[in-house]
This record gives sequence, C-alpha cells and structure tokens, in this order.
Amino acid sequence: MTGPSAADRLLAVLAAFDHDHPALSLTEISRRAGLSLTTAHRLVGALAGWGALERDASGAYHVGLRLWEVAALAPRGLGLRQAALPYLEDLYEATHENVQLAVRDGPEVVYTEWISGRSAVGVRIQVGARWPLHATGVGLALLAHEVPAVQDAYCARPLAAFTAHTVTDPAVLRRTLAEVRRTGVAVSRRQVTDDALSVAAPVRGPAGAVVAAVSVVVPYPTARTPALVPAVRLAARGISRALGWQPRDPDTDTDPPQEP
Amino acid sequence: MTGPSAADRLLAVLAAFDHDHPALSLTEISRRAGLSLTTAHRLVGALAGWGALERDASGAYHVGLRLWEVAALAPRGLGLRQAALPYLEDLYEATHENVQLAVRDGPEVVYTEWISGRSAVGVRIQVGARWPLHATGVGLALLAHEVPAVQDAYCARPLAAFTAHTVTDPAVLRRTLAEVRRTGVAVSRRQVTDDALSVAAPVRGPAGAVVAAVSVVVPYPTARTPALVPAVRLAARGISRALGWQPRDPDTDTDPPQEP
Repeated sequence: MTGPSAADRLLAVLAAFDHDHPALSLTEISRRAGLSLTTAHRLVGALAGWGALERDASGAYHVGLRLWEVAALAPRGLGLRQAALPYLEDLYEATHENVQLAVRDGPEVVYTEWISGRSAVGVRIQVGARWPLHATGVGLALLAHEVPAVQDAYCARPLAAFTAHTVTDPAVLRRTLAEVRRTGVAVSRRQVTDDALSVAAPVRGPAGAVVAAVSVVVPYPTARTPALVPAVRLAARGISRALGWQPRDPDTDTDPPQEP
Repeated sequence: MTGPSAADRLLAVLAAFDHDHPALSLTEISRRAGLSLTTAHRLVGALAGWGALERDASGAYHVGLRLWEVAALAPRGLGLRQAALPYLEDLYEATHENVQLAVRDGPEVVYTEWISGRSAVGVRIQVGARWPLHATGVGLALLAHEVPAVQDAYCARPLAAFTAHTVTDPAVLRRTLAEVRRTGVAVSRRQVTDDALSVAAPVRGPAGAVVAAVSVVVPYPTARTPALVPAVRLAARGISRALGWQPRDPDTDTDPPQEP
C-alpha cells in the first residue's frame, strides 16, 4: 500500500496548471509542483496516458479532454451555493436590496441564487434566469476575468441593446472590462432596465479562477454605489475564501494587467 | 518512490464518475474503480481534501469545483481537432460536401473545423461561428445527449426561427431530441436556410460523454440523406475511437432511453 503522498503528488501536477499557466513544459510542471524531474515525468506520463493531460506539437502539456469530460459532471450549484448562502444573506442584511449569485454558461450568465430585497426595482430575476454577459454587472464581472480568447469572441458578437444605456460598442465593452479587472468590481448602470443599477464582484475558486459573481441590484438613480462597492467585494471575497481560495496579495483581488 | 499504480488508482476513482453516474457513494466508487474500500476511502479523502470531489448533504460524492476550474483550461480544440481531421477529410472525400466539427458552448454550437465542399449551399459557416443549438444538425446532436437539466433549460428558452421550417415549439424539439437519441443521428431540414439540410452525429470522448458533433451540409432538396447517415455516423465513431472511446455495445452508439 502506498502513502497518501502519491495522490498529493499527482494532484500537485494538476494544480500546476492555472489561468496564467494553461500550457507547461515538463520542466515547468516539475518546478511548479515541487517535484523532481523524474517523478514529474512519471506522473505526467500516467496523466497523459489516461487523458488528463495532452501534449501539443511544440511539446507543451495542456489539460486534456478526458479531464474536461469528467469535470463537466461537477454540479457547480452544489458546493458553490452551500458556500455562498451565508455571505449572500449577510449582504442582504447589510443592504436590504436584491442579492444575486450567478455563473457563466457560454455567452450568458445563469442566476443560481437570488435573495429578494424590499425595493421595487423593475428587474425581476429568478433562479435559472439567463441574461447576456455584457448588460449585467455579474456578466461583466465574469467576462472581465475570462481568458482573452473568450473575451475576443464575445466582443466580436452582435451586442444586444436592452435600454438606451446598454453598451453595444465592442471598443467601449473592452474598456469596461479592463476597468473591471483594474478595480475588482463591475457596475452596470441602467443597462438592463432604465431604473436599475447593479454592483458585482467576482468569486474565485480554490485554484484562483473566477467561477461565479455576486451582485446587488438597486433602483436608479442611487447615491449608494460608493457604499455598495466594498460590501459586494467583501461578500465575494468571503465566498471565495469559503471555497478554498487564498489571496496571493491580501490587499487586492484584482488580476495582473492583461495584454489588449 | 511509489510505483505508477498509485496514480492509476487515483485516476480510476475519477473515472468512476460518468454521465450515468454523476453522484456516487464510497461503496459505489470502490466497486466501480475496482479498489478495496480502504484504498477507495483514502483516495477519496485525498481528492476531497484537494477539491476534486465534493460530498453533498446525503453523503454522496460529486466531481468538485476545483477539478472543474482546472479542467476549464482544457483547449477542446487541440486534441479534438488533431483526432478529427483525418476523419473529416475522409468524410469530405466520400461526400464532396461541406463538412463541419462543432462543440457546445452554453446555448450555442461553435464550429471548430470546417471543410468546404463543391456545392453552393446558402449556408456559409466559418471556424469560430456560432449558432443556436435547436436549428442546426450539430446542435441537435449535442443537445440530445446533454443531461435532462440542460435540455429542460434549453427547451424553456425562446426558440428563434430562421426559416418557416425552424422548430420553435418546445414539445416538437423534445420529440426531435428523443428521436436523435434513438437513431444516433440528427437531421436538420431547412431550419437554418431554406435551401440546406444537415446530417450530424455525436462524437464521444474517452469517458463516453458527447464532446462534439460532426456534420455534412447539402443543398435541399436532396435524395442523398439515406446515404449520408451512415457516412456521418462512421466519421463520428472514428473520431470517438481516435479520442479513446470504446463502445460498450459494438452494434450501437445510442444512449439508453431517458425518462422524460
């Protein structure tokens, strides 16, 4: 019988891949996983043989199709909603406004949790409802942290207008996404309905990827935006920590600048 | 140093989860992975501690958020296109018509490969193009093999019409999806443009999940549909085998019937 460290070493190889490192050489894997080259070679061989890793023409390793297949079975609602609910309730208690949790599914956000506030905002969101990414606060928070290829594909689409204020110019959308990355928060003003504003922040999973977004929707006009920003960020960070995320720099949850 | 079998045992635990078994008890994991209960318990503990598995309130294990995060880095294009290209070329040689490979991204298909045929079908598809699932052959082939929750969510959406022949009635769409599962092939007649018909079949990954679809688009009307069906199915099965899929029953690649 082998010790538990064998499992940990294999998982360390998988953990070497993240948003900023989607393709790695064997040497990079061994360094990032803290393994000898011999051990890394053996484990990468086992993972590649199974289909968890794939090697491209340049020799670099990528996460493989078989791992994607198995991982597609993950019920993102499950652990996420369990972890998020106390923080969503706290955010509701602090604001008494509509509070949402949403994940990305292709070019849309899907609302997975929703706590209704007192105010009669024109926006009525139900669990399971879908909305295009560019109009909503949660959608902007999710899209802003996607890889450039996903952002490029989205910005190349026709951007539907829902009000006169919806951003439909891809160049403006790109600037908005850069601003969301810089500030760590997304504000959507009157983009869904004329009478509502939403403030959203990204939720990170244990590996640091943005897996969901949390938001508050309030009636527009409002003087409360500056007060809502820290509350929403705090809730998003709380959920991220409950999911196992650990900030690399405790003063910020923003991403490093991306090349345009 | 531990032998390679430690890695294989850990991967066997992950492989215990599939489309038909998204939630498993520890006993079921040990049986499906061919491991003793003691070994399964230790490995499940390591995977759960890392976040690759999650336990729900009933005690059943599911694939976890952290594995989903890592797997989301998989470039589905890479291994898939490499494996598919020879079969797509053969399908083109056999038919001399437009040949496509597509994957699902939320409520849309994304075309990842496209070989242009001689016939002047009104449909012009480019790599990276997107189209709603219900109108296209590839989209129907992909949606038909999704879990019921995904099908239900899609059928509850407004279904856009592109021609007078596009299916926009959710009840008709559901019957169409059942027919696709039964026959293993999807035929879209004049649903995208009035002058085209597509025949599509699902491509399965190593774990048996439908990961892509392959199709041929021909001018409508055509008398060739009966001849195209086996060619498209053969290409789809060839790509599936190249990806590592092994049919459980060599006479069929259809799914077991689903509860409505």
